[in-house]
Order: sequence, then structure tokens, then C-alpha cells
Amino acid sequence: MSADTPRQFHLNAFLMNAGHHDAAWRHPRTQPERITDLAYFQELARTAERGRLDSLFLADGVALWGNARYNAVGGFEPLTLLSALAVATEHIGLIATVSTTFNEPFHVARKFASLDHISGGRAGWNIVTSGNVAEARNFGLEEHLEHALRYERASEFLDVTKELWDSWLDDAPVIDRERGVYSREGAVRPIEHRGTHFRVDGPLNVQRSPQGHPLLVQAGSSQDGKEFAARYAEAVFTAQQTLADGQTFYKDLKSRLAKYGRTPGQLKILPGICPIIGGTEAEALALEDELTALQVPEYGLQQLSGMLGTDLSGLPLDGPLPELPEERDINGNKSRFTLVAELARREQLTIRQLIARLGGGRGHRVFAGTPEQIADQLEEWFTEGAADGFNIMPPYLPGGLDDFVDQVVPLLQGRGLFRTEYSGRTLRDHYGLQRPAGRPALSH
Amino acid sequence: MSADTPRQFHLNAFLMNAGHHDAAWRHPRTQPERITDLAYFQELARTAERGRLDSLFLADGVALWGNARYNAVGGFEPLTLLSALAVATEHIGLIATVSTTFNEPFHVARKFASLDHISGGRAGWNIVTSGNVAEARNFGLEEHLEHALRYERASEFLDVTKELWDSWLDDAPVIDRERGVYSREGAVRPIEHRGTHFRVDGPLNVQRSPQGHPLLVQAGSSQDGKEFAARYAEAVFTAQQTLADGQTFYKDLKSRLAKYGRTPGQLKILPGICPIIGGTEAEALALEDELTALQVPEYGLQQLSGMLGTDLSGLPLDGPLPELPEERDINGNKSRFTLVAELARREQLTIRQLIARLGGGRGHRVFAGTPEQIADQLEEWFTEGAADGFNIMPPYLPGGLDDFVDQVVPLLQGRGLFRTEYSGRTLRDHYGLQRPAGRPALSH
Repeated sequence: MSADTPRQFHLNAFLMNAGHHDAAWRHPRTQPERITDLAYFQELARTAERGRLDSLFLADGVALWGNARYNAVGGFEPLTLLSALAVATEHIGLIATVSTTFNEPFHVARKFASLDHISGGRAGWNIVTSGNVAEARNFGLEEHLEHALRYERASEFLDVTKELWDSWLDDAPVIDRERGVYSREGAVRPIEHRGTHFRVDGPLNVQRSPQGHPLLVQAGSSQDGKEFAARYAEAVFTAQQTLADGQTFYKDLKSRLAKYGRTPGQLKILPGICPIIGGTEAEALALEDELTALQVPEYGLQQLSGMLGTDLSGLPLDGPLPELPEERDINGNKSRFTLVAELARREQLTIRQLIARLGGGRGHRVFAGTPEQIADQLEEWFTEGAADGFNIMPPYLPGGLDDFVDQVVPLLQGRGLFRTEYSGRTLRDHYGLQRPAGRPALSH
Repeated sequence: MSADTPRQFHLNAFLMNAGHHDAAWRHPRTQPERITDLAYFQELARTAERGRLDSLFLADGVALWGNARYNAVGGFEPLTLLSALAVATEHIGLIATVSTTFNEPFHVARKFASLDHISGGRAGWNIVTSGNVAEARNFGLEEHLEHALRYERASEFLDVTKELWDSWLDDAPVIDRERGVYSREGAVRPIEHRGTHFRVDGPLNVQRSPQGHPLLVQAGSSQDGKEFAARYAEAVFTAQQTLADGQTFYKDLKSRLAKYGRTPGQLKILPGICPIIGGTEAEALALEDELTALQVPEYGLQQLSGMLGTDLSGLPLDGPLPELPEERDINGNKSRFTLVAELARREQLTIRQLIARLGGGRGHRVFAGTPEQIADQLEEWFTEGAADGFNIMPPYLPGGLDDFVDQVVPLLQGRGLFRTEYSGRTLRDHYGLQRPAGRPALSH
């Protein structure tokens, strides 16, 4: 980017079954019968690519999320789905969530290297430590690993995977048929990792991939999470309800980078937003109300109980929350707990009101308005130091993504805030991030 | 199939980087620079589909195979690759190898269910227990799990994965928008597995897939392996050097099925064959010699040492094998050890001769001849009770697969031994195997 090119922002399409609103599947403009249909996701991916978005993203957990009785769940596993989507797209980045708590570094390093080859350098890994006891109970454990221990394991996990990705030099294959030499001597090396959590000999059994390392993404916003992000992440998805909170988070996280020898530009911060788009503000608000009216209270109560680590069943929906634990006593997603608890306290919400507020974005910001108003919001957060870009969470699909791409993106492009064509080839190119060099090359 | 349709056989294309011959990558008709190029595998998959083959198959290990200095290795991970190939094909089955020793049932059940949805019912799982200490050393272990314990774990692993695949009823989603009910009551159930090796609560977070269960494939031929196959496998890949050995294995394995309440038709046996195809027999033999002449002796010696569990480095290539251990002392691939040891003993081969014999198929049968001669061989094994089909291992790619599809398949079709069009939709359809019913349906 030349010095006189205005700073532009980054957009990620966060895809979620019938949409991010927990009642989306009941809305007539969604297709909940297609969440196990590859063509449905291919269409969504192509829509995001038509909008020139940097990437698309799939969240993940290793247990059934929510209650299948009341929501459209039980779709694809992210890595297999993204491999298939790589074939249906040419430019857009492909980011999968994978947990460091219930996986092994060798498998994870390998699958992302493979996806990076398959997609020609478009793979990204959203690193999570998993926050749910139901996940632990699918992997032989009675209780979830303690929060700080999860991050300790995650840190060693990252060190190992990076070593594995670098276990092949970029120019290892020389393919000298005459001499019978496929790889240069010493260009493929064991890593011999011996740590607290892992022992891994290596080398990886996949050659170094187009991006060297997939883009490293992270979404935890607890103290442990922010420190981990400052050390490893290149993009961060975060839930921030207000501009002031967004600015505080942005400044805090960027200020932690220097300690790890990194510059602010090496980490991009993307707050989530669930944009409810209407031709007029009144139409947008009516759509939001329509979705709220479709919520299943039992479902909302179960989800809220999970976020707050507190069993709310049986409590009156029109009453207040009970006494809540402290963040330090939460062993799941600490930052989401605090966000929800503070939202309820600040606005004095009843349980029913809180369920309504969380229905669209599970704690991410929901904004209902015209395309113009949404573009204004994004521009404000970007110019006022709260964001390098946005994690776009359409409330319902496919229409909510179509509307964003067709109605909001052109406004952003018109204001010079967003690309009109892809200029790079890899996901790292889109985010303006360098390719990791890997081990020093051998002398030839 | 109606009663008067002649029995036909099944063909699987076993894809392997530049080809199955360990010197294939040095041959001028291969493309070893493309083993990390998705388009290369898409072309191979389309060729196999053009030949109406039942399936294609990727072997796998969770450590670098062979020595990257002397062979074209370091390509894709199978599940990610097959997801991408699903998009490039319409009919052919997609079989990935995954180890039960270094994985967790929840991940594996989920990824195969996802691949089965992505491919519209074309997923198959080649179940292995891993036979290599280098794999153990990528997963925190100093030594490999003991052979019998690996099979014990594999057995419980299969029980858990099947329960997970059945944790959703086929007709679980009712998608009743009006009432706010996505899945029927009781149609998605935890499995609450508590065993020796695994504790898994479930349910799976993927809906039941088109095939119910992916096709279950197995390739171990030890006593433990055969017993496991008789209990779980629906197709078996096996290495048999002679018709007599093939007949013995076929009869033995089929005879074990009754004990598990299964009929002989519920398990298909596919011996491997590496067909070296020439316009004349002399041309085929010359091609075989050409490939042998390209072998790198260091590489062959390392591979042979691995198969025999015996360090052969430093021994004279033109001398005999040293004293070998007994099969019971081998903790890797027991059946491959015995096959190689017996081949060397029966034919009194020097180390160099043995390396040459193993170069094409790593113990699988290598046959050089005209298309007519190869078709005769396949027909003989099929009609003489040694095979229900064949695992085709082209010595070099892509040409060796092209030749098989263009020159051998039409002969087989002409003899009424092989399909001329796909008649079914799923991999189970191709192999003539039933879809598992799953849990009993609820009353509506």
C-alpha cells in the first residue's frame, strides 16, 4: 500500500447456519433445511467473495451447541467444509475455529497446512481454548480444564505447531530426477519438541504451505486471552457493545504488543456486529422486533444460563437476574460472562429483555438501521480507534449477507474505506500481514 | 441387482503422490512437483470416475513416511483433500485412512459425518491402528502402543463412533417454524459412553449423514486384524502375492463373519495389485525394469528395515537378509512383516532383489503385462474365490491410472465383470452394501 492510499478496513463474514439470530431459522426468509447442504454454503461463500470481503469464518465447538429441539444446529465440521469451499471460491480467506484443548498439535498443524495448500494460501485458524464442560465430556474428562491451564497449554500448542510448519524449508523440494534427490539435505528436519504438555518429534508430513503459517486468529478477551492474542494473534474477533468499550479494548490490546516485539499493525482488531438492515430505520427496527417475537424462551434461557454459568431455569422471565458469581469463578468464556453481566446491570434488564438483546449476536453488538446508518457506524468505530475492521454477523441467511454485500459494501467502497477489487492472492495479503519467513534457508 | 445380472466386481483407485512405485517420481512421465497441487488430484479423481470406479482411496500416517530426501512425500492430509475432491466429482466414493490410535472418536465420527454430507453419501473410512513408532513420537509417546491393545482400543473406538453417528435419528429435524420446534423430542440423544478407553457423552454435533455410517474399510491382515475386520469392516484391502494365498485369506476372512451375525456378502475383499501396463508384454516388462533401475538403494533399504523391524543399514545389498525376528515380536504391521519375510525366504532373494520386488507395491502384488493379461489376472482371482474386487495401485501417475481406465476397464466391461455406468448414488450403493438403520425411529 503506498503512503497516499487511505487506510482501509477489513471485513470478515461470520457464517452461522440459518443466521446469527437465534430465531433466524423460524423466519420465512431463511433456509434451515439447508444447513447440511454444501451448495448453501457455497452460495454464501460466493456472496461474500462478490463483496470482496477479506475472509469468511466458521465458529466451532466439540459438543452440540444449543438445543437441537429449538434451533437449527448439527451442520458441518469447519475444516472439511472449508476445504470444499476452497474449490468454490478463488480469493476469499477461509478461517476455521479449532480448539487447542481437545486436539493435538500434529493433527492441527497438518490440517491447516493442507487447507492452505488446497486453497492456494487462504487458510486461517481461529484459536480457541473451549469454554464448555459439555466439550470436556466428549473427551474423557469430567470437568473442563482450568482457564489459566488452558491458556498455558494453548501457548505451548502454538509453539509446537509453528515449529511443525517450519520443519520444511520453503525450497526443500529440488526434485532432481537425475541424481535421485527429491529434497535438499537438511531441508526437512525433526523438531524434537519436549515440553510440559507435548512431546512431538516431527517433522510435519506436509510441505511448507503457501502462507508459511495460516493466519492466526483469536477471539478470547479475558486477561489471559488478551495476553495470548498479543503474543500470537494476527487478527482478533471481539464482542464490544459500545464505542467506548471498543476503544478501551483496542488501546489495551495494541499496547500489549510491544512486549512481544510486535508492532500495532501486526494485529488487526475486528469487533463483531450483527447488522439488521432495512430500507428505512423503521423497517430495520420492525425486522428486529419480528425476529425477537420468534424467539423460543426455553432456548434463550438455556443459552443465557450457559453464558452466565448460572442455572436460570424456573426463574420468572419478567424478573431480574439472580445474584451472579464473580468472573474469577467462571471457568468458561470469562469475557462473555462479564459483558453480559454488565449489560444487564447497566440497562437494568429483565431476563426476557436480556434474552431479546442477546438473540441477535450472543453478546456481540446488534445494530438495526439503514445501509447508510450501518456504514456510518462502521466508519465511526474505524476512525475513532475502536476497530481495524469488522466481523459481520448477518442475523439471518442468506438474505442478511446479500443485503450487506449489495447495500452496505458499495457505500463503504464509495467512501474509500473498503477495497473494490482483491489486490493480493493470499489471506495474509488481504489483511496486509507478512508471510512468516520460517527457518533460515540453507546455503545452496 | 436382479438374479440374472452376473456378479460384478469392485474397483478402488489407490492414489499415491507420483505413483506407487518408490521410484515413480524419477520417471519422466510423472509430475512430482504437483503433489501439493489440488488440480493434480482433481484430475486423478476425475480419471477414476471416468472409469466408473467404485472409490478412490488415500493411505495415511501421522508421521512423515519414507525419507523426503529420496521420495516425493509431504502432500495433503486425506480428509481435507477428499472434501475438496468431493466438489470435483459426482459419483466416486472417497475413502480416507484415519488411525484409531492417535485420535478421539468424537473428532473422527464428526469429520466423516461431515464428509458424508459434503459428498452426498460418498465417504469411507479406512480404519488403521498405526504401525510406526515415529507416529507415536508425534503424540507424546516414547514407544508405540502394543499391537493387541491397539486393536482393543480400535474396537471400543468403533463402538463409540457408531453410537455417535446414530445419536441423531434420520428424521430428527422437523423444522416446524410455526411451533418453534426444529428437532423432534427425543430424536437427538446423548450416548453416555463409559468404557475402558473412552468416556464420551455425545450427542454428535452433526446430523445423521446420507449413508448413516460411512463405509467402513480395514486393511490389517494379522490375526487381530482379521478378527477386527470380520466384526466391523465392510471392505478389506489386503496384500496377497499369489492366487493360493489370496484364496486362503478370502476363505479365512469370510468364514469369520458368521460369528458376528454377518453374511459373506456384507464384507468385500479387495487384494491390491500394482499393474504395470504395456502395449506388449515385453514393453510392460521393460517399463518395470526401467522403474527398478531408478530406485534409490538407500531409500529401499530404509523402507525394508521398517517393514522387517530390523536395521539393515550397512549390510551388503547383494547378500541375503539377516536372521529376522518372529511375527509375535513385531509391534508394527505384523501381516506385512510376514508377507515380506516369506517372499524373501520362498524365492531366496538378496536384499537388492527384495527391494526391487517391493518397489512397486510395498508388498502388494505387482503384475506387468498387456491390458488383456491384466484383465485375465483380475478375472481369475475374482472367479477363483480370491477377490470381490481389487485395489488398483498405479505404479506411476497420472499415466498409470489413465492406462488402467482407458485400456483395462473397457475389457472388464466387455466381459460383463464391471459396471458401464454408476447405477447408485452413494458409496454403499456402489459396493452393494446396505445403509445402517440407526436407532429405532420414534413413533410420530
